[in-house]
Amino acid sequence: MTESVSLVKTDAVVIGGGPVGLWQVFQLGLQGITPHLIDALPHVGGQCAELYPDKPIYDIPGVAVCKGRELVERLERQIAPFAAPRHLAQQVDTLSLQDDGQVLLSTTAGVRLLARTVFIAAGVGAFVPRTIKADGIAPFVGTQVLYHPDTSHAASQVAGLHVVVHGGEEPAVAAAIACAELQDDAAAASVTLLHRRDAFQAEPGLLERLQALRGTGRIRVVTGQISGVDDPTGKSLQALQLIDTDGAQQRLPLDRLYVYLGISPRLGPITDWGLAIERKQLVVDTASFATSISGIYAVGDINTYPGKRRLILCGFHEATLAAFAAAEYLSADKVALQYTTTSTRLHGLLGVSLPPAT
Amino acid sequence: MTESVSLVKTDAVVIGGGPVGLWQVFQLGLQGITPHLIDALPHVGGQCAELYPDKPIYDIPGVAVCKGRELVERLERQIAPFAAPRHLAQQVDTLSLQDDGQVLLSTTAGVRLLARTVFIAAGVGAFVPRTIKADGIAPFVGTQVLYHPDTSHAASQVAGLHVVVHGGEEPAVAAAIACAELQDDAAAASVTLLHRRDAFQAEPGLLERLQALRGTGRIRVVTGQISGVDDPTGKSLQALQLIDTDGAQQRLPLDRLYVYLGISPRLGPITDWGLAIERKQLVVDTASFATSISGIYAVGDINTYPGKRRLILCGFHEATLAAFAAAEYLSADKVALQYTTTSTRLHGLLGVSLPPAT
Repeated sequence: MTESVSLVKTDAVVIGGGPVGLWQVFQLGLQGITPHLIDALPHVGGQCAELYPDKPIYDIPGVAVCKGRELVERLERQIAPFAAPRHLAQQVDTLSLQDDGQVLLSTTAGVRLLARTVFIAAGVGAFVPRTIKADGIAPFVGTQVLYHPDTSHAASQVAGLHVVVHGGEEPAVAAAIACAELQDDAAAASVTLLHRRDAFQAEPGLLERLQALRGTGRIRVVTGQISGVDDPTGKSLQALQLIDTDGAQQRLPLDRLYVYLGISPRLGPITDWGLAIERKQLVVDTASFATSISGIYAVGDINTYPGKRRLILCGFHEATLAAFAAAEYLSADKVALQYTTTSTRLHGLLGVSLPPAT
Repeated sequence: MTESVSLVKTDAVVIGGGPVGLWQVFQLGLQGITPHLIDALPHVGGQCAELYPDKPIYDIPGVAVCKGRELVERLERQIAPFAAPRHLAQQVDTLSLQDDGQVLLSTTAGVRLLARTVFIAAGVGAFVPRTIKADGIAPFVGTQVLYHPDTSHAASQVAGLHVVVHGGEEPAVAAAIACAELQDDAAAASVTLLHRRDAFQAEPGLLERLQALRGTGRIRVVTGQISGVDDPTGKSLQALQLIDTDGAQQRLPLDRLYVYLGISPRLGPITDWGLAIERKQLVVDTASFATSISGIYAVGDINTYPGKRRLILCGFHEATLAAFAAAEYLSADKVALQYTTTSTRLHGLLGVSLPPAT
């Protein structure tokens, strides 16, 4: 987060870096427009990257089969020529229409953008970690309490500390094991795996390692729910208050808490932006994929229109027509169709040389 | 043409085997519907195969660059599991709505199909060779007069014959050379290249070979326009009547005429089928890509709707929604969206094994 709070002025902002958001960047690029791209995750790819990176997709035209991660990589290569600035690991927090028709956006990381057009490609919402509901936790988030750190990141900073890993699925199990297997100076003082019951879901190899580390006492499993923090002075988190499976109160001292309660999509503040909505989807016009506010478009799973099907390839079409519509909106003129096969202008934008005459 | 004149009954017919027609086959396949595919050319691929087989396309999502021919090959592999019957090298001649709502189609090759749904993916029209307008030619087409035969096919049947090749571009030049270079028993009695003026367009190597063959008298160039046939008895074509560049009548004896006046798209009889049309495009509803007649859909370059852009990727979307709409039309029920990533039903249709659990 080295971004300043100064205002970025731009022709276009794309909210959401899933496959449709990436294709929106491509199509805007072909129109000669370089958008800023924002995503809640620290990487692009959206559902493809987060929900099915290793599962095959069979219905991308011209690509008989590819995994979610591979589709993202292919789109990344395709949009590379346009070098769109990215603002990752942050959500659009506020979006407001200005008197001159431009749109002012601010992100949770403090980035402020003034955009002439906005493309909402937010899918089923921003992928954000589920948080602990207990009072008193908030002041420690980002310091002693981390949500869904990478396993290696988690293990890199626990030397000499009492660590609690909270969660019952593979990311929690993997993080607990990584912390417990550290040796010598890097070793944690203790590793506790906290879950509401003594049952964990992970691949068999990890469960065996967990069992072995429990056998040697390197990992202790505690069952219970977090009900509060022990010493909420705001200075440092000393311990968690738990309610165990018998309903009794317990106290769990700790220096560091890693929370893996899952990552789930949240529609978030989009519903507050004054756009026409039907059943949590943004209503669009199929000629332009414009929302009810001029200059704001919605593409992919977030939108709705008669016949809508939530398919990636439909989002590709929607982003394409939205880019044409926005180019006409920005230029206040008709935009003629050019083909990437023949247009020297498009070849220039794509950074490719002219095809050989045949 | 081994097809009988018996009537084929089917749930679906796709007219046009360009990329959008091929994708229509794929999407119908995912709906459990196997369509019959018809194309005017002897191969699938449409404009991609005919107009830019060797030129790069940059705006297929997930495919940074591919040539027209390669896109067709990729789509061919993708639709292979559905084994759609093909009727190539023939045009749909008549299309008429029956009292029960089914559609009766007949092709120029005599195939008759009774279809519950029809998908018109005819692009800019059927690619058909330009024909000679002169009276008296028609009875000899297919026997002594051939339009755009392959070069090797043309050269394989001229032994001992007086051959006239008509045209000024590369296919005509190549065919004349192939016929003139035959040796011994295979050699033609004479080879004449007929064009309206003594100027030919072809790659330099071919033009050099033409020049050399003219030098040795193996190819004679005649300039003029065909105005009629000399002996239109209907029994055999003896000679062409020409008007030469000075306006004088000439007589050109021949046994065989190969005509290469170009292949160009013709919308053909589509405009006679009673479908709503605007500026030669079929008007469709963007929820279903249905035309003005129930059960008949139009996708790709042939259709029009507000915002329409003639892009392949837009046609992919249109074919997808048309397949859903047709599946609902055929079943008279709602069709729920399934994902190729997770649906065992779709995996069965695609002939792929279940993805490994992750």
